[in-house]
Amino acid sequence: MPLSRTTRCNCIQISNRSVNPKSLEKLELIPASESCPRFEIIATMKKSGEKRCLNPESKAIKNLLKALRNERSKRAP
Amino acid sequence: MPLSRTTRCNCIQISNRSVNPKSLEKLELIPASESCPRFEIIATMKKSGEKRCLNPESKAIKNLLKALRNERSKRAP
Repeated sequence: MPLSRTTRCNCIQISNRSVNPKSLEKLELIPASESCPRFEIIATMKKSGEKRCLNPESKAIKNLLKALRNERSKRAP
Repeated sequence: MPLSRTTRCNCIQISNRSVNPKSLEKLELIPASESCPRFEIIATMKKSGEKRCLNPESKAIKNLLKALRNERSKRAP
C-alpha cells in the first residue's frame, strides 16, 4: 500500500502571500526527494523566528528571489 | 574604524562551481543584513552533509534554481 508509507514533508500549509525581504532571516529551498515528493520553500522570519512555507510556483516567491539579488548589490557595492 | 567591526558572514570561500540538484539536501538563501553585508547562498550536500557557499551571481546558481523547479514538477504530477 503505497499510501501507508510516511512522507516527511516540512510543509503542511503553503502560502501564496508575499514576504518582505527585509523581514526575512533566511529562505530554505528543499528539493523533492524520496522522503517528500514536493519541492519546498521555507521562509524564516527575522523577529518572530516564525517559519512560513511558500509556494515555489507563486509570483511572490519569484519577486522575493529577485529582491534578494537586488538587495545584495545595493548593500555590497 | 569601520573595519574593526566584526561581521558575521557564514561564507569565507565562495564557489562558482555547479552543484548537482540530485545531491543537494537543501539550499539556504540568507539576505544581506546588519551582521553580513552580502547575500549568501549555502548548499548542504546530501550524503556528506558538507556545506558549500555558492556565488549568487553565478550561472551555476541560476541553473540550479531552474533545475529545482523542474525537478518538482517532474516528481509531483
